[in-house]
Formats: sequence, structure tokens, C-alpha cells
Amino acid sequence: MTQGDYARMETAFARDYYVRNLALLQADMAERGLGALLIFDPESIYWLTGYRSIGYFTFQCVLVLREGGPVMISRRVNQQVALCNENIPIFVAIEDTDDAITILAGVVRERVAPSAAIGAETGSTYLTVQAWKTLKNALPNPMQDWGGVIERARTIKNATQLGYMREAARCAVAGLDAAVKAIVPGASENDLAAAMLHGATAAGSEYTRVPLVVTGQATGVCFTTWQRRPVKRGDVVFLEAASNVNRYHAMIARCCIAGEATAEQKRLAGIVIESLDRAIEALKPGTTSGVVDAACRAVFEKAGIATYFDHRTAYAIGIGFPPNWAEGRFLSLRPDDPTVIEPGMTFHIVPSVFMPEFGFCFSESVAVTDAGCEVLTDYPRELIEVAF
Amino acid sequence: MTQGDYARMETAFARDYYVRNLALLQADMAERGLGALLIFDPESIYWLTGYRSIGYFTFQCVLVLREGGPVMISRRVNQQVALCNENIPIFVAIEDTDDAITILAGVVRERVAPSAAIGAETGSTYLTVQAWKTLKNALPNPMQDWGGVIERARTIKNATQLGYMREAARCAVAGLDAAVKAIVPGASENDLAAAMLHGATAAGSEYTRVPLVVTGQATGVCFTTWQRRPVKRGDVVFLEAASNVNRYHAMIARCCIAGEATAEQKRLAGIVIESLDRAIEALKPGTTSGVVDAACRAVFEKAGIATYFDHRTAYAIGIGFPPNWAEGRFLSLRPDDPTVIEPGMTFHIVPSVFMPEFGFCFSESVAVTDAGCEVLTDYPRELIEVAF
Repeated sequence: MTQGDYARMETAFARDYYVRNLALLQADMAERGLGALLIFDPESIYWLTGYRSIGYFTFQCVLVLREGGPVMISRRVNQQVALCNENIPIFVAIEDTDDAITILAGVVRERVAPSAAIGAETGSTYLTVQAWKTLKNALPNPMQDWGGVIERARTIKNATQLGYMREAARCAVAGLDAAVKAIVPGASENDLAAAMLHGATAAGSEYTRVPLVVTGQATGVCFTTWQRRPVKRGDVVFLEAASNVNRYHAMIARCCIAGEATAEQKRLAGIVIESLDRAIEALKPGTTSGVVDAACRAVFEKAGIATYFDHRTAYAIGIGFPPNWAEGRFLSLRPDDPTVIEPGMTFHIVPSVFMPEFGFCFSESVAVTDAGCEVLTDYPRELIEVAF
Repeated sequence: MTQGDYARMETAFARDYYVRNLALLQADMAERGLGALLIFDPESIYWLTGYRSIGYFTFQCVLVLREGGPVMISRRVNQQVALCNENIPIFVAIEDTDDAITILAGVVRERVAPSAAIGAETGSTYLTVQAWKTLKNALPNPMQDWGGVIERARTIKNATQLGYMREAARCAVAGLDAAVKAIVPGASENDLAAAMLHGATAAGSEYTRVPLVVTGQATGVCFTTWQRRPVKRGDVVFLEAASNVNRYHAMIARCCIAGEATAEQKRLAGIVIESLDRAIEALKPGTTSGVVDAACRAVFEKAGIATYFDHRTAYAIGIGFPPNWAEGRFLSLRPDDPTVIEPGMTFHIVPSVFMPEFGFCFSESVAVTDAGCEVLTDYPRELIEVAF
């Protein structure tokens, strides 16, 4: 039996999209005088080929040559999903008893002239230092850091990608809404998380990084999530739902009170929501990352609580494989950043306060348009008081 | 306000567990003549301190010195969750406008003598090659690869850890059962995945790597998961549910038929299940990884379909942060592996066949006991025919 007998895997874009992406890399290689590229990030591999095995937690590499299609080097178990994809003409299998770098070095020696310089995606968290050292020792080629080309291309979304992100936003809102409705006496954080995951997935989402479901005083501690705590009357309930369609993400965060909000909670929620409004108003082509951040941050500064808003205003969103759901590694809205905003950029705007008693975050996923920005997520932008 | 005003975070073990783990590292440093260790893996950091921020997708490092407690260097947003943990006495914040390695190098220069050798976890996927190069250039210290000590300690589970894994197994079975019950006419893969995630999470699970829900011919392609395909009459439905409690994992896979199984499907399922039985029987203290693998693989060889079982028989399980849910990087059951099996080792045994028409996998999570092995997951070990 041949590969052709196995199921074909759907790719998110037509073949010419991937052909253009490959051409972009090969043009960059020509310009830099590189004979080969070694790509390791699952996001980069997805952008180049549409390949999306869940097996990216073990070693995988795509070798790009000056001509011809990508060569994938990965575990045998990924062979079918690779070859079911028309953008990966060649797959070299690593057996579970093989050393991955030995196999990769053999493929490179076979296909790349020993004097040709090789660019490697050394900023990727999927290439370990030990693997890099072994690879360098095994190859005669000059090796250099390579990166930035794929990241720049990913920054601007096309109409199809924006369509996927609108779908993802709809799924994220479904997840959020299901979690809000699960806030009832007797429920635990896990019940809310279960409802959120169910709502987003049934609406059409693929797998994402862990969303956030936190209650009570723990909401004051950033980057925690559900851990079986019971929801108690008076608790703040922090919900950040996420979804993706064809790996293109959207997220939305809201805060609720199990019961009635205090006057102080209403005041603080108002500040965070106003800062979100200001960021959305300020986000448009031609302005800069730093200017939008300042517009958002000014609301906290005026209220005298800037010390509790201790991170960037927004991070770029798009392709993600867990634990990443964002493109914040290469684009965000943050203090003094001179990056110029362009149509097609997409962000998750996340103003928040994390105080000892509780925390609040209200967020939206947005896309920069020709004139301003489109809010992708559609849910009442308010502190939600739940009968409890 | 001080850190003490924020919520405390629950750790999975009593303080003395972490004290012993730190002492183990400091003894190893003394033996190797190392003045400091740099730890990057979220699993290693969790083992050492109990710290579990979901923010491990950006740079974080724990510096271990010859005396005193761990020093964490991470983004400002992780400060509360770090300092709410009594095992992290010192936290140095990286602002969102800082370069992470510049901050780390400053901390090392301040606390480690310039002539002292430093061991770094260079096998971790969370330290990039570019970060490593920058760090080496910024420090006068001799730097060396370090690893293996934490991995060896993680290999053998204690009674508390096994208790968490039994709980995780119960949650995974709840997720599996919910997905099986969601197989009804009109359902999609997403509906099954939604039910699985809901079932496991409501039962008590924390977040895991993506579980697997695949239908029809796509089940023949390893490492795919749900992608909105409708379940059709006669489809194979492949379900692999996962859960964790306090980050200690268990998984279980079963296959179903939407309707009645064919004679050929029953025969193949029988082969995979028999291979699983043989592996469980063979797994006991004193035998080797390779011997157990051979016992499992022999069933496929006898049936003449060994070519469709193209990976290791099992991988170790325990601590995981997505995209990892396993400890297979340092322990597995695979051909010719001489590793001796010991009580307290835990595995996910995953015999499978991936054929062009469909695939099958039946799996169990198990713990090696003094005399044999305990199956942690409890669900009928059979091909499930669902009225459809």
C-alpha cells in the first residue's frame, strides 16, 4: 500500500498560498546566500506547509532547499500526516530507537553542499542547545541564526485568515457564555472550565492553550487557572476563553461576581473597561504600538493604580500551538515601542489589575482595518453580576 | 501591600518534599564542582518548587545556588504566583520592555563567583540557542550541559504521586465515557471532544495536552485530532482521553464503531488488545524495557501486521505541561532497550495499528508494583459498538 491510500488531510489554504510562502523563503535564502534553511517551530512549519500533527512535542525539522519542496524530518508516527499533505513532498522518518540529530545530519549531508551556508531557526524553543551543538559538530557547513521572515509575514492577516479568526471569536464567545451560565451555587472552578471547554469546542474550536478560570482571592494572582476551588458567594470569577479555527486564534476575557458587586468592584471594573475602550479607539493604521499602549495605560495612571497593571497592553494573535496561543513573541502593544500599526494586524487587548483581594481583566480580540479596528469578539463589555 | 496579602497557592506536596529535592540538586552540584545550576524546563521547575504558572510559554529560569533556596527569574506577571509559593524565596522580575537574558545574566553575576562553573539544562526545549549564545557571551563563567538528575528522580513515583495518578485515571475514564456516550447520529468530532473535555474536567482534571478524537478514515493517520468531521455510520471512532491531578497524568485510549464492527475490525481489535494484555503481563520489576516491548510487538509480528505498529510500546508518564503529557523523553518501553524496570515506574502502554482504511489503539496507564503492575485506568478493554 502507498501513502495515497491513506486519508487526505485538509489544509487551511489553497495550494498557491503555500507555494508563495515557500518562494518567499527561497528568495530570502538567495539574498542571504544560504544553501538551506532548518525550520523547527511548529508555527513556522504550519505557515509554510499547513502541517499540523499533534506530535510536535518531539523533534521535528523542515529542511528548505534553494529549489524544490520542503523536506520533513520527524518521527515515523508523523509520516502519514506529513505525506497526506501535498506541501510536503519528502518525509524522512526517525525511528523511536534512532538519534534524531544523526538522522537530520545525514539528510543535510545528502542534499546540501558541504560549503553551503545554512540558516537555522535558532530562536525557536523547539531546537534544544544540545541538539544544536550535536548538529554543528556533525556538519561541515557554516551555520547561522535565521529568523524574522516568517514572523513578518505572519504579522499581517489576509481575508481568509481574518475569516478564521472571526469564526474563532464566535467559538470563544460561546465558551465564555457557557462558563458564565455555569456559575451556580455548588459549582467549582472545574465545572466552569468544563462548561467553557465544552462550549468553545462544540461551537467548532480546535485545541488551544489552557484558558483561564479562576475564582475568589486567587484572581489577584496572574496566570493561575482552575484548580478545583468551589465558587463562593461574593467571589470574583475571572474567565478568559479561547478558540481557534485552522489554528487562527481569538480570545475574550470577562469578570463576573457570584452575587452583587461592591461599589469598589464596580469602580475598578469601570477603570479596566475604560482602558480597553481607549486602546480600541487608539488602534489604527499609522499610529505606533507605544502610542496605543500609552492611551490604555493612561486610564490606570489617572486612577492611581498603574502599579497593578504590570504587563503589555496587548499581544499579537494568529497561529498558535500550545503552550503558545499568541504571536506576542514578535509583536505587541507595549510602552515606548515604535512599531507602526498596519491594516491586517490582529491583537488580543488585555488590560488588567491584579490586586491582593482580587483581579480583573476585560479583553477583546481585534483586527486593524484600513480606518481603525474591528472588534472580533462580541459580548457585553461589562462586569457581570450573576444571581447566586 | 506586600506579597503576603495575596492568595497562597496550593502545592502538591508537603514542604519537606521540596527541601529534599533541592538537597538532591545541591549534592549533585557539590559532586560535580558546580557553583550554580540554571533550570529551564517547566517540569523541572515544578518538581523542584511546585511552581505552576500557565505563563511558562515565555522565558523563565530558576537559579540554584550551592546554598539557600531557588531564585526565579521570570516575567513580572509571574511574580505573584511565584512568591505565593514558599519554595521560591527570591523572584527577579523581567519587565515586558526588558531583554530576558540581560536580566538573567545580571542576577548570575551578582550571585555567582565569576570563576564558578555553571551547569545549564541545555536539553530543555525552553532555552533557545540564541538565548544560550547571548548568555554565554554575557558571563565569564565556564558553562556546561547539565541534566539527568531530575529526570532520574521523576522516574520513580512515591505513594502520594501514585494517588494523584489514580485520581487522574478516574478523570480520564470519565472523559472517555462521556465521549463514548456522545457518539450519536448528527454528532461531529467536535461534539465528542467537547464531551470528553467536559467529562474529564468536571471530574477534577487540570489542563492537559490535547486529547485525541478522530473518526473514519482519518483514524488511520496517527497524531491527528478533532477537526469538525461529522461522525458517519460505520466509522471507527478513536478516543484517547487524558487528565492530570496536580500535574500527574493518566491516559486511556479506546476505539468504537458507530454501528456494528466488521469481522475484520473485530479481528484487528483483538490483536491490539491481546498485545496490550501481553505488555501488562510482562511488565514487572527486574525485567527490561526491551523485553516488555518484545512481548507486546510479538503479537503483531505473529499476525503479520508489525509494519503498522510503528512506534514504541509505551512511554513513561508523570508530570507534564502541554505540549508534553509524558516522560517519554527519558523513559519508554522500546525495542532492545536494556533499562531495568523498577517499582514505582509508571507508563502509558499504547499498542496501535494505523492502516490506510482506519486505525486502532487500545491503551492503559499502569504503575509497576513490587510484584507486577497495577492498571490505573478502569474501563472495559474491548472494541465498543455503539448503536447508531
